[in-house]
Amino acid sequence: MAAAERVEIVEVGPRDGLQNEDTPLSVADKVELIRRLVEAGARRIEAVSFVNPRRVPQMAGAEEVMAAVPRTPGVSYIGLVLNRRGLDRALAAGVDEVNVAIPATDEFCRRNQGTTVEEMTAAFADIAAAAAEAGTPVSATVSTAFGCPFEGETDPGRVAAVARAAAEAGAVEIAVADTIGVGVPRQVADLLARVRAAAPGVRLRCHFHNTRNTGYANAHAALEHGVDVLDASVGGFGGCPFAPGATGNIATEDLVYLLDRSGVATGVDSAATARTGTWLGSLLGKPPTALLGRAGGFPD
Amino acid sequence: MAAAERVEIVEVGPRDGLQNEDTPLSVADKVELIRRLVEAGARRIEAVSFVNPRRVPQMAGAEEVMAAVPRTPGVSYIGLVLNRRGLDRALAAGVDEVNVAIPATDEFCRRNQGTTVEEMTAAFADIAAAAAEAGTPVSATVSTAFGCPFEGETDPGRVAAVARAAAEAGAVEIAVADTIGVGVPRQVADLLARVRAAAPGVRLRCHFHNTRNTGYANAHAALEHGVDVLDASVGGFGGCPFAPGATGNIATEDLVYLLDRSGVATGVDSAATARTGTWLGSLLGKPPTALLGRAGGFPD
Repeated sequence: MAAAERVEIVEVGPRDGLQNEDTPLSVADKVELIRRLVEAGARRIEAVSFVNPRRVPQMAGAEEVMAAVPRTPGVSYIGLVLNRRGLDRALAAGVDEVNVAIPATDEFCRRNQGTTVEEMTAAFADIAAAAAEAGTPVSATVSTAFGCPFEGETDPGRVAAVARAAAEAGAVEIAVADTIGVGVPRQVADLLARVRAAAPGVRLRCHFHNTRNTGYANAHAALEHGVDVLDASVGGFGGCPFAPGATGNIATEDLVYLLDRSGVATGVDSAATARTGTWLGSLLGKPPTALLGRAGGFPD
Repeated sequence: MAAAERVEIVEVGPRDGLQNEDTPLSVADKVELIRRLVEAGARRIEAVSFVNPRRVPQMAGAEEVMAAVPRTPGVSYIGLVLNRRGLDRALAAGVDEVNVAIPATDEFCRRNQGTTVEEMTAAFADIAAAAAEAGTPVSATVSTAFGCPFEGETDPGRVAAVARAAAEAGAVEIAVADTIGVGVPRQVADLLARVRAAAPGVRLRCHFHNTRNTGYANAHAALEHGVDVLDASVGGFGGCPFAPGATGNIATEDLVYLLDRSGVATGVDSAATARTGTWLGSLLGKPPTALLGRAGGFPD
Protein backbone atom coordinates (compact mmCIF):
# COMPACT_ATOMS: atom_id res chain seq x y z
CA MET A 1 0.00 0.00 0.00
CA ALA A 2 1.49 3.35 -1.03
CA ALA A 3 2.19 5.96 1.64
CA ALA A 4 0.01 9.06 1.50
CA GLU A 5 1.39 12.36 0.26
CA ARG A 6 -0.92 14.20 2.62
CA VAL A 7 -1.56 13.32 6.25
CA GLU A 8 -4.31 14.70 8.43
CA ILE A 9 -3.21 15.41 11.96
CA VAL A 10 -5.74 15.21 14.76
CA GLU A 11 -4.43 17.57 17.41
CA VAL A 12 -5.19 15.92 20.74
CA GLY A 13 -3.23 18.33 22.95
CA PRO A 14 -6.24 20.04 24.53
CA ARG A 15 -7.67 16.66 25.57
CA ASP A 16 -5.12 13.83 25.83
CA GLY A 17 -2.36 16.38 26.30
CA LEU A 18 -3.91 17.90 29.40
CA GLN A 19 -5.82 15.08 31.08
CA ASN A 20 -2.84 13.75 33.00
CA GLU A 21 -1.16 17.00 34.04
CA ASP A 22 -0.85 18.04 37.68
CA THR A 23 -1.67 21.64 36.83
CA PRO A 24 -5.24 21.98 35.54
CA LEU A 25 -5.63 24.70 32.92
CA SER A 26 -8.34 27.32 33.20
CA VAL A 27 -11.08 27.46 30.59
CA ALA A 28 -9.53 30.68 29.25
CA ASP A 29 -6.13 29.03 28.86
CA LYS A 30 -7.68 25.99 27.16
CA VAL A 31 -9.45 28.25 24.69
CA GLU A 32 -6.26 30.23 24.08
CA LEU A 33 -4.41 26.94 23.47
CA ILE A 34 -7.01 25.92 20.89
CA ARG A 35 -6.90 29.37 19.28
CA ARG A 36 -3.11 29.12 18.88
CA LEU A 37 -3.39 25.60 17.45
CA VAL A 38 -5.96 26.72 14.88
CA GLU A 39 -3.69 29.62 13.97
CA ALA A 40 -0.82 27.12 13.50
CA GLY A 41 -2.93 25.19 11.02
CA ALA A 42 -4.69 22.50 13.07
CA ARG A 43 -8.00 21.56 11.42
CA ARG A 44 -9.17 18.60 13.50
CA ILE A 45 -8.83 19.11 17.22
CA GLU A 46 -9.83 16.81 20.07
CA ALA A 47 -10.80 19.78 22.15
CA VAL A 48 -12.69 18.43 25.14
CA SER A 49 -13.70 15.33 27.05
CA PHE A 50 -17.20 14.78 28.41
CA VAL A 51 -16.13 12.45 31.17
CA ASN A 52 -17.04 12.90 34.79
CA PRO A 53 -14.99 15.88 36.04
CA ARG A 54 -14.87 14.29 39.47
CA ARG A 55 -12.87 11.43 37.94
CA VAL A 56 -10.73 13.60 35.64
CA PRO A 57 -10.70 17.15 37.05
CA GLN A 58 -8.35 18.32 34.29
CA MET A 59 -11.23 17.89 31.83
CA ALA A 60 -13.72 20.11 33.70
CA GLY A 61 -15.36 22.99 31.86
CA ALA A 62 -15.89 21.22 28.53
CA GLU A 63 -19.09 23.14 27.80
CA GLU A 64 -17.43 26.48 28.55
CA VAL A 65 -14.49 25.62 26.33
CA MET A 66 -16.74 24.63 23.43
CA ALA A 67 -18.76 27.84 23.82
CA ALA A 68 -15.62 29.93 23.38
CA VAL A 69 -13.51 28.18 20.74
CA PRO A 70 -12.97 30.00 17.44
CA ARG A 71 -15.42 28.76 14.84
CA THR A 72 -12.98 29.05 11.97
CA PRO A 73 -14.33 27.55 8.72
CA GLY A 74 -12.84 24.10 8.09
CA VAL A 75 -12.01 23.48 11.73
CA SER A 76 -13.65 20.44 13.29
CA TYR A 77 -13.84 19.98 17.06
CA ILE A 78 -13.95 16.49 18.50
CA GLY A 79 -15.34 15.65 21.93
CA LEU A 80 -14.38 12.43 23.71
CA VAL A 81 -17.34 10.60 25.23
CA LEU A 82 -17.60 7.29 27.05
CA ASN A 83 -21.37 6.96 27.52
CA ARG A 84 -24.78 8.32 26.49
CA ARG A 85 -24.70 11.05 29.09
CA GLY A 86 -21.36 12.22 27.68
CA LEU A 87 -22.81 12.13 24.17
CA ASP A 88 -25.79 14.25 25.19
CA ARG A 89 -23.45 16.82 26.73
CA ALA A 90 -21.21 16.77 23.64
CA LEU A 91 -24.11 17.30 21.25
CA ALA A 92 -25.54 20.09 23.39
CA ALA A 93 -22.11 21.73 23.49
CA GLY A 94 -21.92 21.73 19.70
CA VAL A 95 -19.03 19.42 18.93
CA ASP A 96 -18.49 18.59 15.26
CA GLU A 97 -17.44 14.99 15.89
CA VAL A 98 -17.52 12.50 18.70
CA ASN A 99 -14.77 10.04 19.57
CA VAL A 100 -15.28 7.03 21.83
CA ALA A 101 -12.48 5.03 23.45
CA ILE A 102 -12.99 1.26 23.54
CA PRO A 103 -10.14 -0.56 25.26
CA ALA A 104 -9.09 -3.94 23.92
CA THR A 105 -8.27 -5.32 27.39
CA ASP A 106 -10.74 -5.81 30.22
CA GLU A 107 -8.66 -4.74 33.21
CA PHE A 108 -7.77 -1.41 31.65
CA CYS A 109 -11.40 -0.98 30.54
CA ARG A 110 -12.59 -1.63 34.09
CA ARG A 111 -10.15 0.81 35.69
CA ASN A 112 -10.45 3.50 33.02
CA GLN A 113 -14.15 3.29 32.25
CA GLY A 114 -15.73 1.02 34.84
CA THR A 115 -16.94 -1.51 32.27
CA THR A 116 -15.81 -4.61 30.38
CA VAL A 117 -14.71 -4.54 26.74
CA GLU A 118 -17.98 -6.26 25.80
CA GLU A 119 -20.09 -3.73 27.69
CA MET A 120 -18.10 -0.84 26.21
CA THR A 121 -18.54 -2.22 22.72
CA ALA A 122 -22.30 -2.34 23.31
CA ALA A 123 -22.22 1.19 24.73
CA PHE A 124 -20.45 2.32 21.57
CA ALA A 125 -23.28 0.95 19.43
CA ASP A 126 -25.77 2.89 21.52
CA ILE A 127 -23.71 6.10 21.33
CA ALA A 128 -23.16 5.67 17.59
CA ALA A 129 -26.86 5.21 16.89
CA ALA A 130 -27.80 8.32 18.85
CA ALA A 131 -25.03 10.37 17.24
CA ALA A 132 -26.12 9.22 13.78
CA GLU A 133 -29.62 10.40 14.57
CA ALA A 134 -28.16 13.80 15.46
CA GLY A 135 -26.08 13.79 12.26
CA THR A 136 -22.76 13.86 14.12
CA PRO A 137 -19.93 11.60 12.92
CA VAL A 138 -18.54 9.12 15.44
CA SER A 139 -15.11 7.56 15.52
CA ALA A 140 -13.79 4.80 17.79
CA THR A 141 -10.36 4.62 19.35
CA VAL A 142 -9.31 1.08 20.22
CA SER A 143 -7.10 1.74 23.22
CA THR A 144 -4.44 -0.51 24.79
CA ALA A 145 -4.20 -2.10 21.33
CA PHE A 146 -0.42 -2.61 21.56
CA GLY A 147 -0.21 -3.68 25.17
CA CYS A 148 -1.95 -3.20 28.51
CA PRO A 149 -0.46 -1.86 31.73
CA PHE A 150 -2.33 -4.55 33.67
CA GLU A 151 -2.58 -7.53 31.32
CA GLY A 152 0.68 -7.19 29.37
CA GLU A 153 0.27 -8.54 25.84
CA THR A 154 -2.94 -7.56 24.07
CA ASP A 155 -4.52 -10.21 21.87
CA PRO A 156 -4.47 -8.70 18.36
CA GLY A 157 -7.56 -10.76 17.56
CA ARG A 158 -9.37 -8.82 20.28
CA VAL A 159 -8.28 -5.54 18.69
CA ALA A 160 -9.67 -6.70 15.36
CA ALA A 161 -12.91 -7.86 16.99
CA VAL A 162 -13.45 -4.49 18.67
CA ALA A 163 -12.72 -2.74 15.37
CA ARG A 164 -15.21 -4.98 13.54
CA ALA A 165 -17.92 -4.28 16.09
CA ALA A 166 -17.24 -0.53 15.94
CA ALA A 167 -17.42 -0.55 12.15
CA GLU A 168 -20.67 -2.49 12.19
CA ALA A 169 -22.11 -0.02 14.68
CA GLY A 170 -21.34 2.89 12.33
CA ALA A 171 -17.88 4.22 13.22
CA VAL A 172 -16.73 6.46 10.36
CA GLU A 173 -13.11 6.16 11.50
CA ILE A 174 -11.26 3.71 13.72
CA ALA A 175 -8.08 4.55 15.59
CA VAL A 176 -5.56 1.97 16.72
CA ALA A 177 -4.07 3.37 19.91
CA ASP A 178 -0.89 2.61 21.82
CA THR A 179 -2.15 4.05 25.10
CA ILE A 180 0.97 3.24 27.11
CA GLY A 181 3.66 3.60 24.44
CA VAL A 182 4.87 0.02 24.22
CA GLY A 183 4.34 -0.60 20.51
CA VAL A 184 6.93 -1.08 17.78
CA PRO A 185 6.73 -0.60 14.01
CA ARG A 186 6.31 -4.28 13.13
CA GLN A 187 3.33 -4.44 15.46
CA VAL A 188 1.86 -1.43 13.65
CA ALA A 189 2.05 -3.28 10.37
CA ASP A 190 0.49 -6.40 11.85
CA LEU A 191 -2.34 -4.62 13.69
CA LEU A 192 -3.20 -2.39 10.75
CA ALA A 193 -3.52 -5.40 8.47
CA ARG A 194 -5.82 -7.12 10.95
CA VAL A 195 -7.96 -4.07 11.59
CA ARG A 196 -8.21 -3.31 7.90
CA ALA A 197 -9.44 -6.85 7.28
CA ALA A 198 -11.92 -6.62 10.16
CA ALA A 199 -13.28 -3.20 9.23
CA PRO A 200 -12.89 -2.88 5.46
CA GLY A 201 -13.62 0.52 4.00
CA VAL A 202 -13.43 2.36 7.31
CA ARG A 203 -10.83 5.10 7.50
CA LEU A 204 -7.98 4.22 9.88
CA ARG A 205 -6.26 6.55 12.31
CA CYS A 206 -3.32 5.85 14.61
CA HIS A 207 -2.57 7.17 18.08
CA PHE A 208 0.92 6.81 19.51
CA HIS A 209 2.70 7.69 22.73
CA ASN A 210 6.47 8.09 22.80
CA THR A 211 6.95 6.54 26.24
CA ARG A 212 9.84 4.31 25.12
CA ASN A 213 11.02 6.32 22.10
CA THR A 214 9.15 4.19 19.58
CA GLY A 215 6.28 6.61 18.87
CA TYR A 216 7.65 8.41 15.82
CA ALA A 217 8.92 5.17 14.30
CA ASN A 218 5.41 3.79 14.76
CA ALA A 219 3.88 6.86 13.15
CA HIS A 220 6.16 6.52 10.17
CA ALA A 221 5.34 2.81 9.93
CA ALA A 222 1.62 3.63 9.95
CA LEU A 223 2.15 6.10 7.12
CA GLU A 224 4.08 3.48 5.13
CA HIS A 225 1.16 1.11 5.66
CA GLY A 226 -1.38 3.47 4.18
CA VAL A 227 -2.67 5.36 7.22
CA ASP A 228 -3.28 9.05 6.52
CA VAL A 229 -4.70 10.24 9.85
CA LEU A 230 -2.46 10.51 12.92
CA ASP A 231 -3.13 11.80 16.40
CA ALA A 232 -0.46 14.05 17.89
CA SER A 233 -0.23 16.42 20.83
CA VAL A 234 1.34 19.87 20.84
CA GLY A 235 4.55 19.80 22.88
CA GLY A 236 4.21 16.04 23.31
CA PHE A 237 2.28 16.42 26.54
CA GLY A 238 -0.14 13.71 27.52
CA GLY A 239 -0.79 10.47 29.27
CA CYS A 240 -3.62 8.63 30.91
CA PRO A 241 -4.67 9.06 34.53
CA PHE A 242 -5.62 5.39 34.77
CA ALA A 243 -2.55 3.90 33.07
CA PRO A 244 0.50 3.73 35.36
CA GLY A 245 3.64 5.03 33.67
CA ALA A 246 1.82 6.45 30.66
CA THR A 247 3.60 9.50 29.28
CA GLY A 248 3.35 11.91 26.43
CA ASN A 249 1.83 11.53 23.01
CA ILE A 250 4.02 12.00 19.98
CA ALA A 251 4.48 15.75 19.60
CA THR A 252 2.73 17.52 16.76
CA GLU A 253 5.70 19.75 15.95
CA ASP A 254 8.18 16.86 15.78
CA LEU A 255 5.81 14.73 13.71
CA VAL A 256 5.23 17.63 11.31
CA TYR A 257 9.00 18.14 11.02
CA LEU A 258 9.37 14.48 10.02
CA LEU A 259 6.48 14.73 7.54
CA ASP A 260 7.63 18.08 6.09
CA ARG A 261 11.10 16.70 5.41
CA SER A 262 9.49 13.62 3.86
CA GLY A 263 7.47 15.71 1.42
CA VAL A 264 4.19 14.85 3.15
CA ALA A 265 1.83 17.81 3.53
CA THR A 266 -0.15 18.42 6.71
CA GLY A 267 -1.17 22.08 6.60
CA VAL A 268 0.32 22.48 10.07
CA ASP A 269 3.17 24.91 10.74
CA SER A 270 5.81 23.09 12.81
CA ALA A 271 7.53 26.24 14.06
CA ALA A 272 4.29 27.89 15.19
CA THR A 273 3.23 24.65 16.86
CA ALA A 274 6.62 24.40 18.59
CA ARG A 275 6.14 27.94 19.95
CA THR A 276 2.71 26.90 21.24
CA GLY A 277 4.28 23.84 22.85
CA THR A 278 6.82 26.01 24.65
CA TRP A 279 4.05 28.37 25.77
CA LEU A 280 1.94 25.45 27.02
CA GLY A 281 4.96 24.11 28.90
CA SER A 282 5.26 27.42 30.70
CA LEU A 283 1.61 27.14 31.81
CA LEU A 284 2.02 23.53 32.93
CA GLY A 285 5.33 24.20 34.66
CA LYS A 286 7.25 21.56 32.72
CA PRO A 287 9.16 21.52 29.45
CA PRO A 288 7.69 19.90 26.35
CA THR A 289 8.94 16.43 25.45
CA ALA A 290 8.92 17.73 21.89
CA LEU A 291 12.45 18.42 20.68
CA LEU A 292 11.90 20.76 17.73
CA GLY A 293 11.38 23.83 19.90
CA ARG A 294 14.78 23.28 21.50
CA ALA A 295 16.72 22.07 18.44
CA GLY A 296 15.22 24.38 15.84
CA GLY A 297 14.27 23.32 12.34
CA PHE A 298 16.47 22.20 9.48
CA PRO A 299 19.46 24.58 9.24
CA ASP A 300 19.14 27.22 6.50
CA MET B 1 15.50 -6.05 0.66
CA ALA B 2 14.46 -8.11 3.67
CA ALA B 3 15.07 -6.73 7.14
CA ALA B 4 17.65 -8.59 9.21
CA GLU B 5 16.60 -10.83 12.07
CA ARG B 6 19.81 -9.97 13.89
CA VAL B 7 21.29 -6.49 14.25
CA GLU B 8 24.76 -5.68 15.46
CA ILE B 9 24.88 -2.66 17.69
CA VAL B 10 28.03 -0.56 17.82
CA GLU B 11 28.01 1.01 21.26
CA VAL B 12 29.39 4.53 20.79
CA GLY B 13 28.64 5.83 24.30
CA PRO B 14 32.25 5.92 25.52
CA ARG B 15 33.26 8.01 22.49
CA ASP B 16 30.42 9.93 20.81
CA GLY B 17 28.44 9.78 24.04
CA LEU B 18 31.09 11.57 26.08
CA GLN B 19 32.84 13.90 23.65
CA ASN B 20 30.35 16.73 24.03
CA GLU B 21 29.68 16.59 27.77
CA ASP B 22 30.63 19.42 30.11
CA THR B 23 31.83 16.98 32.75
CA PRO B 24 34.86 15.01 31.54
CA LEU B 25 34.98 11.47 32.87
CA SER B 26 38.12 10.09 34.52
CA VAL B 27 39.94 7.21 32.89
CA ALA B 28 38.71 4.94 35.69
CA ASP B 29 35.09 5.95 35.07
CA LYS B 30 35.47 5.44 31.32
CA VAL B 31 36.85 1.96 31.92
CA GLU B 32 34.05 1.18 34.35
CA LEU B 33 31.52 2.39 31.75
CA ILE B 34 33.02 0.05 29.17
CA ARG B 35 33.09 -2.82 31.67
CA ARG B 36 29.38 -2.35 32.39
CA LEU B 37 28.57 -2.18 28.68
CA VAL B 38 30.44 -5.41 27.98
CA GLU B 39 28.60 -7.02 30.86
CA ALA B 40 25.31 -5.85 29.34
CA GLY B 41 26.19 -7.61 26.09
CA ALA B 42 27.93 -4.98 23.94
CA ARG B 43 30.39 -6.66 21.56
CA ARG B 44 31.55 -3.77 19.37
CA ILE B 45 32.39 -0.64 21.28
CA GLU B 46 33.71 2.68 19.99
CA ALA B 47 35.79 3.07 23.11
CA VAL B 48 38.17 5.93 22.45
CA SER B 49 39.09 8.74 20.10
CA PHE B 50 42.66 9.52 19.11
CA VAL B 51 42.03 13.17 18.38
CA ASN B 52 44.04 16.01 19.83
CA PRO B 53 43.00 16.23 23.53
CA ARG B 54 43.59 19.99 23.41
CA ARG B 55 40.74 20.21 20.88
CA VAL B 56 38.48 17.64 22.58
CA PRO B 57 39.53 17.38 26.24
CA GLN B 58 36.73 14.89 26.96
CA MET B 59 38.65 12.36 24.84
CA ALA B 60 41.94 12.60 26.76
CA GLY B 61 43.48 9.43 28.16
CA ALA B 62 42.67 7.15 25.22
CA GLU B 63 45.85 5.09 25.73
CA GLU B 64 45.14 4.64 29.44
CA VAL B 65 41.54 3.59 28.72
CA MET B 66 42.65 1.02 26.14
CA ALA B 67 45.25 -0.37 28.53
CA ALA B 68 42.58 -1.09 31.13
CA VAL B 69 39.48 -2.27 29.22
CA PRO B 70 38.38 -5.86 29.78
CA ARG B 71 39.71 -8.11 27.03
CA THR B 72 36.63 -10.29 26.93
CA PRO B 73 36.68 -12.79 24.03
CA GLY B 74 34.45 -11.60 21.18
CA VAL B 75 34.58 -7.94 22.21
CA SER B 76 36.01 -5.57 19.61
CA TYR B 77 37.19 -2.09 20.54
CA ILE B 78 37.09 0.67 17.95
CA GLY B 79 39.23 3.78 18.04
CA LEU B 80 38.24 6.92 16.13
CA VAL B 81 41.12 8.47 14.22
CA LEU B 82 41.26 11.43 11.87
CA ASN B 83 44.88 11.30 10.66
CA ARG B 84 48.02 9.18 10.51
CA ARG B 85 49.23 10.32 13.89
CA GLY B 86 45.89 9.20 15.39
CA LEU B 87 46.21 5.86 13.61
CA ASP B 88 49.71 5.31 14.98
CA ARG B 89 48.43 6.02 18.49
CA ALA B 90 45.43 3.72 17.96
CA LEU B 91 47.56 0.83 16.73
CA ALA B 92 50.03 1.26 19.56
CA ALA B 93 47.15 1.30 22.03
CA GLY B 94 45.87 -2.01 20.71
CA VAL B 95 42.49 -1.18 19.22
CA ASP B 96 40.77 -3.97 17.30
CA GLU B 97 39.31 -1.69 14.64
CA VAL B 98 39.74 1.87 13.45
CA ASN B 99 36.95 4.20 12.39
CA VAL B 100 37.52 7.39 10.40
CA ALA B 101 34.97 10.20 10.04
CA ILE B 102 34.78 11.79 6.60
CA PRO B 103 32.25 14.63 6.45
CA ALA B 104 30.23 15.08 3.27
CA THR B 105 30.23 18.89 3.55
CA ASP B 106 33.27 21.15 3.43
CA GLU B 107 32.39 23.72 6.07
CA PHE B 108 31.74 21.09 8.70
CA CYS B 109 34.90 19.25 7.63
CA ARG B 110 36.91 22.43 8.00
CA ARG B 111 35.57 23.27 11.46
CA ASN B 112 35.58 19.70 12.78
CA GLN B 113 38.77 18.41 11.23
CA GLY B 114 40.60 21.37 9.70
CA THR B 115 40.50 19.95 6.17
CA THR B 116 38.31 19.82 3.08
CA VAL B 117 36.24 16.78 2.12
CA GLU B 118 38.69 16.07 -0.69
CA GLU B 119 41.69 16.25 1.64
CA MET B 120 39.96 14.08 4.24
CA THR B 121 39.09 11.50 1.61
CA ALA B 122 42.78 11.38 0.63
CA ALA B 123 43.76 11.15 4.30
CA PHE B 124 41.40 8.20 4.66
CA ALA B 125 43.18 6.36 1.84
CA ASP B 126 46.49 6.93 3.59
CA ILE B 127 45.11 5.75 6.96
CA ALA B 128 43.42 2.73 5.38
CA ALA B 129 46.62 1.62 3.63
CA ALA B 130 48.65 1.85 6.83
CA ALA B 131 45.95 0.07 8.85
CA ALA B 132 45.75 -2.70 6.26
CA GLU B 133 49.49 -3.16 6.58
CA ALA B 134 49.02 -3.54 10.32
CA GLY B 135 46.14 -5.99 9.76
CA THR B 136 43.58 -3.76 11.45
CA PRO B 137 40.15 -3.33 9.84
CA VAL B 138 39.11 0.22 8.98
CA SER B 139 35.62 1.61 8.62
CA ALA B 140 34.53 5.05 7.38
CA THR B 141 31.73 7.14 8.80
CA VAL B 142 30.33 9.63 6.28
CA SER B 143 29.25 12.41 8.61
CA THR B 144 26.77 15.26 7.95
CA ALA B 145 25.25 12.92 5.36
CA PHE B 146 21.68 14.06 6.08
CA GLY B 147 22.32 17.76 6.51
CA CYS B 148 25.02 20.17 7.65
CA PRO B 149 24.81 22.73 10.45
CA PHE B 150 26.63 25.25 8.24
CA GLU B 151 25.62 24.39 4.67
CA GLY B 152 22.06 23.13 5.20
CA GLU B 153 21.17 20.50 2.60
CA THR B 154 23.85 17.91 1.89
CA ASP B 155 24.19 16.80 -1.73
CA PRO B 156 23.41 13.07 -1.65
CA GLY B 157 25.69 12.66 -4.66
CA ARG B 158 28.54 13.89 -2.48
CA VAL B 159 27.68 11.28 0.17
CA ALA B 160 27.80 8.59 -2.47
CA ALA B 161 31.10 9.91 -3.85
CA VAL B 162 32.72 9.85 -0.41
CA ALA B 163 31.41 6.32 0.15
CA ARG B 164 32.78 5.20 -3.22
CA ALA B 165 36.21 6.65 -2.46
CA ALA B 166 36.23 5.05 1.00
CA ALA B 167 35.30 1.67 -0.46
CA GLU B 168 37.99 1.91 -3.11
CA ALA B 169 40.52 2.79 -0.41
CA GLY B 170 39.66 -0.37 1.51
CA ALA B 171 36.93 0.48 4.03
CA VAL B 172 35.45 -2.78 5.29
CA GLU B 173 32.32 -0.99 6.48
CA ILE B 174 30.77 2.39 5.67
CA ALA B 175 28.47 4.27 8.03
CA VAL B 176 25.95 6.85 6.88
CA ALA B 177 25.74 9.35 9.71
CA ASP B 178 23.17 11.96 10.65
CA THR B 179 25.58 14.00 12.75
CA ILE B 180 23.09 16.71 13.69
CA GLY B 181 19.84 14.71 13.79
CA VAL B 182 17.97 16.29 10.90
CA GLY B 183 17.27 13.16 8.84
CA VAL B 184 13.95 11.44 8.18
CA PRO B 185 13.15 7.86 7.16
CA ARG B 186 12.60 8.57 3.47
CA GLN B 187 16.05 10.15 3.32
CA VAL B 188 17.46 6.99 4.90
CA ALA B 189 15.97 4.91 2.10
CA ASP B 190 17.31 7.25 -0.56
CA LEU B 191 20.81 7.59 0.87
CA LEU B 192 21.20 3.88 1.52
CA ALA B 193 20.27 3.08 -2.07
CA ARG B 194 22.83 5.57 -3.35
CA VAL B 195 25.59 4.44 -1.02
CA ARG B 196 24.90 0.79 -1.78
CA ALA B 197 25.21 1.54 -5.51
CA ALA B 198 28.42 3.52 -4.97
CA ALA B 199 30.05 0.97 -2.67
CA PRO B 200 28.65 -2.42 -3.67
CA GLY B 201 29.56 -5.29 -1.38
CA VAL B 202 30.69 -3.11 1.50
CA ARG B 203 28.80 -3.63 4.75
CA LEU B 204 26.67 -0.61 5.67
CA ARG B 205 26.19 0.86 9.11
CA CYS B 206 23.98 3.75 10.18
CA HIS B 207 24.51 6.40 12.84
CA PHE B 208 21.58 8.47 14.05
CA HIS B 209 21.01 11.27 16.52
CA ASN B 210 17.56 11.87 17.98
CA THR B 211 17.83 15.66 18.01
CA ARG B 212 14.38 16.16 16.47
CA ASN B 213 12.78 12.85 17.48
CA THR B 214 13.39 11.19 14.14
CA GLY B 215 16.34 9.00 15.18
CA TYR B 216 14.51 5.81 16.07
CA ALA B 217 12.26 6.08 13.02
CA ASN B 218 15.43 6.40 10.94
CA ALA B 219 16.97 3.38 12.63
CA HIS B 220 13.90 1.32 11.90
CA ALA B 221 13.91 2.54 8.29
CA ALA B 222 17.56 1.52 7.95
CA LEU B 223 16.69 -1.95 9.25
CA GLU B 224 13.82 -2.23 6.77
CA HIS B 225 16.28 -1.31 4.02
CA GLY B 226 18.67 -4.10 4.84
CA VAL B 227 21.12 -2.46 7.24
CA ASP B 228 22.16 -4.75 10.07
CA VAL B 229 24.70 -2.59 11.93
CA LEU B 230 23.55 0.42 13.94
CA ASP B 231 25.43 2.84 16.15
CA ALA B 232 23.77 3.70 19.46
CA SER B 233 24.85 5.33 22.69
CA VAL B 234 24.03 4.17 26.21
CA GLY B 235 21.60 6.60 27.82
CA GLY B 236 21.33 8.53 24.55
CA PHE B 237 24.15 10.84 25.52
CA GLY B 238 26.20 12.43 22.79
CA GLY B 239 26.70 15.22 20.35
CA CYS B 240 29.48 16.93 18.50
CA PRO B 241 31.61 19.76 19.93
CA PHE B 242 31.87 21.38 16.49
CA ALA B 243 28.22 21.07 15.44
CA PRO B 244 26.00 23.73 17.00
CA GLY B 245 22.79 22.26 18.44
CA ALA B 246 23.91 18.66 18.07
CA THR B 247 22.41 16.47 20.79
CA GLY B 248 22.28 12.86 21.80
CA ASN B 249 22.63 9.73 19.77
CA ILE B 250 19.80 7.27 19.72
CA ALA B 251 19.95 5.41 23.02
CA THR B 252 21.10 1.81 23.04
CA GLU B 253 18.50 0.70 25.58
CA ASP B 254 15.58 2.24 23.68
CA LEU B 255 16.80 0.87 20.35
CA VAL B 256 17.20 -2.58 21.88
CA TYR B 257 13.67 -2.35 23.32
CA LEU B 258 12.35 -1.61 19.82
CA LEU B 259 14.37 -4.45 18.30
CA ASP B 260 13.51 -6.95 21.06
CA ARG B 261 9.80 -6.31 20.60
CA SER B 262 10.28 -6.68 16.84
CA GLY B 263 11.86 -10.11 17.22
CA VAL B 264 15.28 -8.82 16.13
CA ALA B 265 18.16 -10.21 18.20
CA THR B 266 21.06 -8.00 19.33
CA GLY B 267 22.67 -9.86 22.23
CA VAL B 268 22.36 -6.68 24.29
CA ASP B 269 20.34 -6.58 27.51
CA SER B 270 18.12 -3.48 27.42
CA ALA B 271 17.45 -3.40 31.17
CA ALA B 272 21.14 -3.71 32.10
CA THR B 273 22.00 -1.04 29.53
CA ALA B 274 19.29 1.23 30.93
CA ARG B 275 20.78 0.85 34.41
CA THR B 276 24.19 1.77 32.97
CA GLY B 277 22.62 4.81 31.29
CA THR B 278 21.17 5.94 34.62
CA TRP B 279 24.53 5.41 36.32
CA LEU B 280 26.31 7.36 33.58
CA GLY B 281 23.78 10.17 33.95
CA SER B 282 24.64 10.40 37.63
CA LEU B 283 28.33 10.81 36.74
CA LEU B 284 27.59 13.42 34.07
CA GLY B 285 25.11 15.28 36.24
CA LYS B 286 22.25 15.05 33.76
CA PRO B 287 19.50 12.54 33.08
CA PRO B 288 19.69 10.20 30.09
CA THR B 289 17.59 11.13 27.06
CA ALA B 290 16.81 7.42 26.90
CA LEU B 291 13.29 6.72 28.09
CA LEU B 292 13.38 3.01 28.92
CA GLY B 293 15.10 3.52 32.27
CA ARG B 294 12.26 5.80 33.35
CA ALA B 295 9.34 3.98 31.75
CA GLY B 296 10.43 0.41 32.38
CA GLY B 297 10.08 -2.41 29.90
CA PHE B 298 6.97 -4.04 28.51
CA PRO B 299 4.55 -4.72 31.39
CA ASP B 300 4.57 -8.31 32.63
